[in-house]
Amino acid sequence: MRLLMVSLFLYCGLVFAHEQDGSLYSNEFLQKLIKLRDQALSDDLGYRITESLTTEVGARLAGSSNDAKAVAWAQSKFKELGFDRVTVEPAKLTRWTRGEETAEVVTPYPHQLAITALGRTIPTPEAGITGEIVHFKTLADLEAADPAMVQGKITFISNRMERHQDGSGYGKAVGARGTSAQVTAAKGGIAAIIRSIGTDDNRTPHTGAAKYDKDIPSVPAGAISNPDADLLVNMLKREQPVTIKLRLTSHWDGEYTSYNVIGDMLGTSQKEQYIVIGCHLDSWDLGTGAIDDASGCGITMAAAKLIREEVGPLKKTIRVVLWANEEYGLSGAKAYHEAHKKNLANHILGGESDFGAGRIYGFGTRVGTAAMPIIYKIAEILRPLGIEYSNNQSWSGADLIPLRKAGMAVFSLHQDGTKYFDYHHTANDTLDKIDPKELAQNVAAWVVVTAMAANTEHDFGFGLTDPEK
Amino acid sequence: MRLLMVSLFLYCGLVFAHEQDGSLYSNEFLQKLIKLRDQALSDDLGYRITESLTTEVGARLAGSSNDAKAVAWAQSKFKELGFDRVTVEPAKLTRWTRGEETAEVVTPYPHQLAITALGRTIPTPEAGITGEIVHFKTLADLEAADPAMVQGKITFISNRMERHQDGSGYGKAVGARGTSAQVTAAKGGIAAIIRSIGTDDNRTPHTGAAKYDKDIPSVPAGAISNPDADLLVNMLKREQPVTIKLRLTSHWDGEYTSYNVIGDMLGTSQKEQYIVIGCHLDSWDLGTGAIDDASGCGITMAAAKLIREEVGPLKKTIRVVLWANEEYGLSGAKAYHEAHKKNLANHILGGESDFGAGRIYGFGTRVGTAAMPIIYKIAEILRPLGIEYSNNQSWSGADLIPLRKAGMAVFSLHQDGTKYFDYHHTANDTLDKIDPKELAQNVAAWVVVTAMAANTEHDFGFGLTDPEK
Repeated sequence: MRLLMVSLFLYCGLVFAHEQDGSLYSNEFLQKLIKLRDQALSDDLGYRITESLTTEVGARLAGSSNDAKAVAWAQSKFKELGFDRVTVEPAKLTRWTRGEETAEVVTPYPHQLAITALGRTIPTPEAGITGEIVHFKTLADLEAADPAMVQGKITFISNRMERHQDGSGYGKAVGARGTSAQVTAAKGGIAAIIRSIGTDDNRTPHTGAAKYDKDIPSVPAGAISNPDADLLVNMLKREQPVTIKLRLTSHWDGEYTSYNVIGDMLGTSQKEQYIVIGCHLDSWDLGTGAIDDASGCGITMAAAKLIREEVGPLKKTIRVVLWANEEYGLSGAKAYHEAHKKNLANHILGGESDFGAGRIYGFGTRVGTAAMPIIYKIAEILRPLGIEYSNNQSWSGADLIPLRKAGMAVFSLHQDGTKYFDYHHTANDTLDKIDPKELAQNVAAWVVVTAMAANTEHDFGFGLTDPEK
Repeated sequence: MRLLMVSLFLYCGLVFAHEQDGSLYSNEFLQKLIKLRDQALSDDLGYRITESLTTEVGARLAGSSNDAKAVAWAQSKFKELGFDRVTVEPAKLTRWTRGEETAEVVTPYPHQLAITALGRTIPTPEAGITGEIVHFKTLADLEAADPAMVQGKITFISNRMERHQDGSGYGKAVGARGTSAQVTAAKGGIAAIIRSIGTDDNRTPHTGAAKYDKDIPSVPAGAISNPDADLLVNMLKREQPVTIKLRLTSHWDGEYTSYNVIGDMLGTSQKEQYIVIGCHLDSWDLGTGAIDDASGCGITMAAAKLIREEVGPLKKTIRVVLWANEEYGLSGAKAYHEAHKKNLANHILGGESDFGAGRIYGFGTRVGTAAMPIIYKIAEILRPLGIEYSNNQSWSGADLIPLRKAGMAVFSLHQDGTKYFDYHHTANDTLDKIDPKELAQNVAAWVVVTAMAANTEHDFGFGLTDPEK
């Protein structure tokens, strides 16, 4: 009964769509697309690609020995999937390596702490650094502190990230990761530790990039796990001095050339116009980078492949970009923008899958108003997947920032991020965190948006005002 | 309304109890006890004791520098809580220390693996050991294997522990931890790794004791985390040889004297008769030993203290034993049995809290049939806590094995262990895994059983047949 009603609904939607917007898409195209959308829900190609990258390459920090392996994997996988054109484009970066990382409470109660260096931070002396903790609940408290309180001490920010479906707790908490080292240095502190920017209770601390500028003084900085932060807070409640020793040997380590890897499914009538989808190929080094961002690669590579296989070549080219070094430099994003400066307007619409593989519930855009009928049509085909249109103020992914700032239209497929920050940037970012059925729903959604964007001769506006301007 | 009904229910239960079994307990005692039982549900003493041990001592592997700190903590805490008599009794042991532990896949796809040495296992050579994996789904498969398959290889058992409320998946899976090293050695293998005996998906491998006998050949052995085991299984599906390198420097390290720490709340008319409750004071070294077993100490120490404070001295002595080295030797249990050989029959009833702090749902015993009226009376007072009597075939805790084998009656308060094996024996065994309200319900239950056992001049039978005989 339920199946029949869904079928009727889909059929009515289709008829309605075609009657109302016949000029946008052919009935034949929409039929094929809807069939593929529904098949994709039980297709495992996206999951298999994700499994392949996490198993055969694993952790792939930009500049590490696995960076080149990931680039080779990506070229090989695009070819295996039958992409029409596979290219690599250099993305230069200054390499940061993690080294060793240990922390312990020295007094009053010795404990080993689970710590990880924040990305891009400077090392402690080889023998480590020991100092008394000065505790702040938030970055704002540290910023407001009298330097005399901080002088010679190790700062500790204990604010805990909130859990929300849309991941909005991240933005509120992540400032401490970004600038605590610089603020600590400015006030005469000797090192900075923060409570991990994460929603879990595991002894798996969360790394992630801190701000770095060689001309701004900084200190060694690390994140301790949530249970370790709780322990320190409980210890500090006893109102005795708490001394800790840190040893973080992470450091900058010379120049390196990584690559964006690009797979094109060429268009027909508008081959030089690109619908740009993708993921970032690099990951942090603690886990195997499954939800950040192998799943984004699996989802978008599979979507492009399934579209070609089941629907055929479309009007515009579908370009899947596997971006280099998103995590600590946006190196691939910057290099692409630079390399394609002369034809940015050919980048018709862009989206990046970079928030794990949780179920998609929303669809947002940032397109010219003339394109809204197409967007509403896409939203209609997405709706049976449990996806509702949100608004036209989408931000999209980090790797699209340079293109978006240049005026490219973008879209977002909003994923359920309730659990994402339990694992993000930790040793726990591994394949088992992905539900194959949820990942397949992502593929279905990316199929719909990508194919419909690529199979219209309309554009989506260019030269839009950037939300960050 | 609900409160009134609960009160009426409790009142009726009380009247009934007194009328039917007037000879067992005075009305005044039962009234005080029921009042305390209900107050205990919102009392935080048990949680505060648990917080104190995990914060001020933390990890306390038998024989480590924290062993003596834990003993000092326990003596001091018993005194602070007003126990009438605090004693320590030596428990000799051969010290095992963990050392360093690393593992990596060498070919075909290099990965770092999260590994921990199994307790009591022997070390690899200092430089580590490298070999090809031979994969078995279960210990039984390894036991049945042709030695030619195992010769010169590293065995890997990938069987995953099942999750059940009563923790019964543990018994089915833990054999691999116990004997895989010996079975591997007997077949000419060079090392053994197992999938962690745990129900989680964290990169926090589960340690725990392996069988050890200096006269039985063994090999270095470790447990890898569940995500790492999944990774190896996926790699092995590709049907290429998988080579790993292990380095485990754990080793036996000389003799040490630890101590059972005993706090007595002395009885009145039967001071020399003991109701023996408690926990084990030692823990594994990876976390802070919160659920294994600081919570058991918090629960039982708080129960004895609250009984004395709110109900007063009872007929028999309440003896809280904090057992030494449960984890890799039952050293305290054996030493206590040896030291008290002449008065074992004075140990009237025993119970150990050693399964975390999950909500108690069941009450079981192993007592003489003459004591069953008392047991049913205890069960009646427990029932409003959501606890049902199970049966008279209880096993009780590991530290009571020698006393139980000598004939002591025992009881168990069955805790919800649904999540226990997510954290058991891992770095994740920390205070945040404990729900203070659930812990308080444990205290309430221990108050009821302990006080009712201590405030009768009856006994519970001695010389019972041991379930393991």
